[in-house]
Amino acid sequence: MPQVKVGLVGFGIVGAGVAEILINNSEIIKNRLGSEVVLKKIADLDINSDRGVKVDNRLFTTDAMEVINDPDIDIIIELIGGCDYAKEYILKAMENGKHVVTANKALLAQHGRLLFDSSEKYGVDIAFEASVAGGIPIIKVLREGLAANNIKEVLSILNGTSNYILTRMTKEGISFSEALSKARKLGYAEADPTLDIDGSDAAHKLTILISLIFGTPYHFDDVYREGIDKVLPLDIRFASELGYCIKLLAIARLIDGNIEARLHPTFVPSDHILANVINAFNALYIQGDFVGSTLFYGLGAGRRPTASAVVADLIDLGRNKISGAARRVLPLSFASPPEKELPIKPMDQIISEYYFRFSAVDKPGVLSKISGILGSNNISIATVIQKERESDSSVPLVMLTHEAREIDVKKSLELIDRLDVVVEKTVLYRVEKR
Amino acid sequence: MPQVKVGLVGFGIVGAGVAEILINNSEIIKNRLGSEVVLKKIADLDINSDRGVKVDNRLFTTDAMEVINDPDIDIIIELIGGCDYAKEYILKAMENGKHVVTANKALLAQHGRLLFDSSEKYGVDIAFEASVAGGIPIIKVLREGLAANNIKEVLSILNGTSNYILTRMTKEGISFSEALSKARKLGYAEADPTLDIDGSDAAHKLTILISLIFGTPYHFDDVYREGIDKVLPLDIRFASELGYCIKLLAIARLIDGNIEARLHPTFVPSDHILANVINAFNALYIQGDFVGSTLFYGLGAGRRPTASAVVADLIDLGRNKISGAARRVLPLSFASPPEKELPIKPMDQIISEYYFRFSAVDKPGVLSKISGILGSNNISIATVIQKERESDSSVPLVMLTHEAREIDVKKSLELIDRLDVVVEKTVLYRVEKR
Repeated sequence: MPQVKVGLVGFGIVGAGVAEILINNSEIIKNRLGSEVVLKKIADLDINSDRGVKVDNRLFTTDAMEVINDPDIDIIIELIGGCDYAKEYILKAMENGKHVVTANKALLAQHGRLLFDSSEKYGVDIAFEASVAGGIPIIKVLREGLAANNIKEVLSILNGTSNYILTRMTKEGISFSEALSKARKLGYAEADPTLDIDGSDAAHKLTILISLIFGTPYHFDDVYREGIDKVLPLDIRFASELGYCIKLLAIARLIDGNIEARLHPTFVPSDHILANVINAFNALYIQGDFVGSTLFYGLGAGRRPTASAVVADLIDLGRNKISGAARRVLPLSFASPPEKELPIKPMDQIISEYYFRFSAVDKPGVLSKISGILGSNNISIATVIQKERESDSSVPLVMLTHEAREIDVKKSLELIDRLDVVVEKTVLYRVEKR
Repeated sequence: MPQVKVGLVGFGIVGAGVAEILINNSEIIKNRLGSEVVLKKIADLDINSDRGVKVDNRLFTTDAMEVINDPDIDIIIELIGGCDYAKEYILKAMENGKHVVTANKALLAQHGRLLFDSSEKYGVDIAFEASVAGGIPIIKVLREGLAANNIKEVLSILNGTSNYILTRMTKEGISFSEALSKARKLGYAEADPTLDIDGSDAAHKLTILISLIFGTPYHFDDVYREGIDKVLPLDIRFASELGYCIKLLAIARLIDGNIEARLHPTFVPSDHILANVINAFNALYIQGDFVGSTLFYGLGAGRRPTASAVVADLIDLGRNKISGAARRVLPLSFASPPEKELPIKPMDQIISEYYFRFSAVDKPGVLSKISGILGSNNISIATVIQKERESDSSVPLVMLTHEAREIDVKKSLELIDRLDVVVEKTVLYRVEKR
């Protein structure tokens, strides 16, 4: 029986999960592949800590290059994360003629073009299913399952930590910081949760998604992002009253030859299937021009779901090896790339519906002043809620708008926030209805 | 540029959709494949009706064999449905060395083994993404995306017509026959909806699913099935009161080396993500041992979603052709099949929670008699609802049970239905909580 020989670089949480699935599920993997997957070497700086999985001690080395330069190894799995060493290791592995599996979203979102070019130069595969949405096989779905479609739109929940925090805030009425503590206690948030909370993690994934959908490697900086740290229980309550919930949505959309690629807390109708994606789950709601609406849902992080995705890639590359079909599907799934690189629309130019919460003094004429400014900037109001005074100084005045241009919204809010009847910066959310 | 040359047998609704997507989306298909897909011939008995898609008239023939025997054609797409001619055509195409794409679930569920053996004999691919859940790329997900997992359980909604009817009954409180008329008017139900309503259609798909999950071709007769034609608004109301909705679930599950494969109307908790799959949508809720819970959702039928799946298969086989990698993934995704064919558990042996609605006369002692019989058959009651008398003769007495064995349930209900205080046959539903 032929063998697929694998070297693992990075033996942290996910690396240990990969070893575990290769051991526990060796039978089904062998049956599916028609070949044994043999873990030949594991490199990590720490080769002594117990990761809860039994691996032959002789496999370990602290020298990544020993794995990458081993002529006996077919496929390198890179799971160290970060951009410096990981990039160097992957490039060297490809130069050595090895295929690569990686879960490194930050690296792909910043150096995707370099990695893909190098894989072409050396005629090897680079697979990265685990880099987006963990266990959900969304890369395969986009590269293959929906390959006949022009993808019109993706609305997605790509960060489990943020989704868990927003779910707790919604269900329990607690503040962001209280919900964050809960997430920390349950291990859903890292000691330093910055990348989750500020939207960087999800924006890395969105960058990879738009690269796959539109066939050219985009860069992380192209994607607009806002995190969830400013979401208040008050706005979640108003959202609910209006028939919405607040989700951190990663949005990709093709409009008139331009791409929208943006990530921000968003109003989503409560009866939308994405509203039912709660706690640490991820999901992608994808519109194709023939397939219509689809949803792909699962765990976006964690040792076992991520290992499922990494080993799916291993099986894929193993099948390529056995069939002699390296690069059967190219990294972005385009064998002859689109003629034109589609531009990303500047945020000012997007058109959306909006939620505003004004903090206005309780005086006659306030509504008229505010709506006057909105009207003269082409923003038309769909719904207004004005509440009883809650504090001494101001009352919340809440509005949903019809479709408006972001630049007009910005201009209006600048003017409105300068009014003497408005006491705090106006709160804004974008609304997705589809 | 190389070409992938295709012959289409069957130019009905889906066939026309396939022609349409090959024309409309030729650019993205060519970009992804690195090759043109050329539709060389189309066979149908009716080559005159307008299908709303512009195809060169010279492609048409009324003789399927003219397509199947054309030495210039690489891939045959079979879309005529049914078991007789379709089987003959596919076998002949494979004998001629052609790869096959089919959407024919009935054929696969009844003659899968024969087709797969034949594809092995002639060294060709047979792809059937469109046979289960329409546009949802679930075959690819199971064969590849989740390939590293042992699949523990699938709970799925596989028939859009039934799901539409149950949704209307639930939302509007209308009867089965009223909801069926609506489905007919909107084109969600055929003139003869028998295969949808009696569960055959979904059971065909479930047969294919268990074949894929467990690696051996099962037969349609192995799968237990009940349709939705006996579902009453009354039970939907009780379900709702108890926190459930009624869905036609196709269930596959591995328990102690036995397979459960059954299809029946089922109580599903209202906060389960499957409860939010409404109208004509399909969805599969899949548990893998590493990936955890996943959901795949989309349109399970219709010209355009089905065409999306057929052409995904075309692209897959085209990629195989270009890479010289025919049979890179075998039909059931097992290169070395599992040693043991797992048996399907007889229905009597399943263990489930149950909903009962007894129609009992309103006399003292009734509850005691019924619960006595249940107790002496090892069935323990979790919840009871007894309502005010609604008609002259009887009151509904509703129970949810803890886990019980189906054979014990059958025995008990036989005894209970013979009691003189019970005036109608007891209504039973199985309950899924996970």
